[in-house]
Amino acid sequence: MQEGFTEDELRLTTMDLWFEEKLEPPVGTTFRVLVNRTIERFRSEYQEIAVLETEKLGKMLILDGVIMLSEFDEFAYHEMIIHVPLLTHPNPKKVLVIGGGDGGSIREIVKHKEVEEVHLCEIDRAVVEVSKRHLPTLSSGFSDPRVKIFYEDGAKFVKNKKGEYDVIIVDSTDPVGAAVVLFEEPFYRDMYEALKPDGIIVSQCESIYYHQDLIKRMLSFISNIFELTGYYYSLVPTYPSGTIGFAFCSKKYNPLKDLDEKRYYKLGKLKYYNPQIHKTSFCLPAFIRELLPPDLLKINNDLIV
Amino acid sequence: MQEGFTEDELRLTTMDLWFEEKLEPPVGTTFRVLVNRTIERFRSEYQEIAVLETEKLGKMLILDGVIMLSEFDEFAYHEMIIHVPLLTHPNPKKVLVIGGGDGGSIREIVKHKEVEEVHLCEIDRAVVEVSKRHLPTLSSGFSDPRVKIFYEDGAKFVKNKKGEYDVIIVDSTDPVGAAVVLFEEPFYRDMYEALKPDGIIVSQCESIYYHQDLIKRMLSFISNIFELTGYYYSLVPTYPSGTIGFAFCSKKYNPLKDLDEKRYYKLGKLKYYNPQIHKTSFCLPAFIRELLPPDLLKINNDLIV
Repeated sequence: MQEGFTEDELRLTTMDLWFEEKLEPPVGTTFRVLVNRTIERFRSEYQEIAVLETEKLGKMLILDGVIMLSEFDEFAYHEMIIHVPLLTHPNPKKVLVIGGGDGGSIREIVKHKEVEEVHLCEIDRAVVEVSKRHLPTLSSGFSDPRVKIFYEDGAKFVKNKKGEYDVIIVDSTDPVGAAVVLFEEPFYRDMYEALKPDGIIVSQCESIYYHQDLIKRMLSFISNIFELTGYYYSLVPTYPSGTIGFAFCSKKYNPLKDLDEKRYYKLGKLKYYNPQIHKTSFCLPAFIRELLPPDLLKINNDLIV
Repeated sequence: MQEGFTEDELRLTTMDLWFEEKLEPPVGTTFRVLVNRTIERFRSEYQEIAVLETEKLGKMLILDGVIMLSEFDEFAYHEMIIHVPLLTHPNPKKVLVIGGGDGGSIREIVKHKEVEEVHLCEIDRAVVEVSKRHLPTLSSGFSDPRVKIFYEDGAKFVKNKKGEYDVIIVDSTDPVGAAVVLFEEPFYRDMYEALKPDGIIVSQCESIYYHQDLIKRMLSFISNIFELTGYYYSLVPTYPSGTIGFAFCSKKYNPLKDLDEKRYYKLGKLKYYNPQIHKTSFCLPAFIRELLPPDLLKINNDLIV
């Protein structure tokens, strides 16, 4: 890590201000980030929200002491949680995002011309507002006329929906507090009903290194509900362990067989996703394949290289 | 990060002892690890060496304040730096490791029955000795009769070798101090001469997120020396950014075309590597493909999925 410093950056060393991530319960490692200034910090109805300007990672959004995103690498998360399902579904007209109040997922969804309606269901209005104020590169998609925001509890929101969405994205925080229900079976059964008969769900599903019990438990019940399930990952340095994964839950379409590459070329320039990463991100290290029985990973089993 | 804690672990909270990684110059982020005790800490002729027993990552080897490895995830690094070249070469009889005094690379090499001779060239005898004392799961391969250790400067060592090795592994520290020469063109020209006419080199080549200038510079001169070059990566949470990459330099064999899968099944159980990861780890995110001209990544261009 020797490169990329200007003289100015190396001069700003009189005072060090560090943000240290607070994970509960502590896991024996933490991540510290050098901070220039606190842009905003307050308590909303649901959580403590902070936007920090860091020395090297751009702005950072922190919820209850946990890093939600940094401008440095959020593209690797948002491009992968969105374009993998949206380029697998042949005609995603109506898309729901649960969580994702920062807007990063919405920004990627509105790049798809086929999408006619996007619903965002975020419990905390303050997250959307803080993103609009300070994270314009993330919140840019909110102004798209196809986007409608609901400030509601995601688990309750999907209970009332039947056969409505082509794709649902669960862009949630870690399974702590209010987000716990988003990692449980009843929520997935409700989402199954909220999908059209050929719908797809992709969910934030933590790290293959640090959350193996959670991943195994979730894929076990998901694979009992959905016709096809799988797990894929992205490389995101500011998340614990540097990698984050996604559960892919599908009634019909298979991301390894049904990728519509032609539509990829209409999305404009992306920073992480490409059609090869789409497929190879389903290739998992031996230890996680050993942990998860093959029938939980029907999709991954179809990867041929 | 909610899981995996026993009552005992949660009880040991009266005193916190943290190791914080020291990277020079500072990059604006650091990694902290909860430590139970210092097993050993001393200054050798070349560097400060420490072995720490951590709370959650097993033992950790630290050189000059920088994490060399943790027992938790070293397999992801060592399996990938070794098995990718050794299963690409059809008959690797004589292998050289430069650096790698912890023994992890040697442990993986001696799993290959075809290998007749392994040379380890490590500048600092103290690293080998400390690994033998405290890291038996890493140093186990040193007792294999095919292994011979040379305590010499790696750059000087290869200067005197001509057409001798099938595979050379550069298992080095970061490009700081004595290791700087291991990231320079003259060293690669000397290694080219030290290889047999169909030889392969794989080198530790840092992170696609944090060391883009270094990766571009190295692949540029490597691709002027070697017939085929490429870049692949592994997921290693305790390294900065959570990912570390490798330069693949080859006179003849292509890891995407010449993988000998039959020999993989004779290696015994591995934790990270499998034949699919072998190939898909050459699939890189869009931002790094954009940074590196296609002729630097002739190997990666052959990936078809």
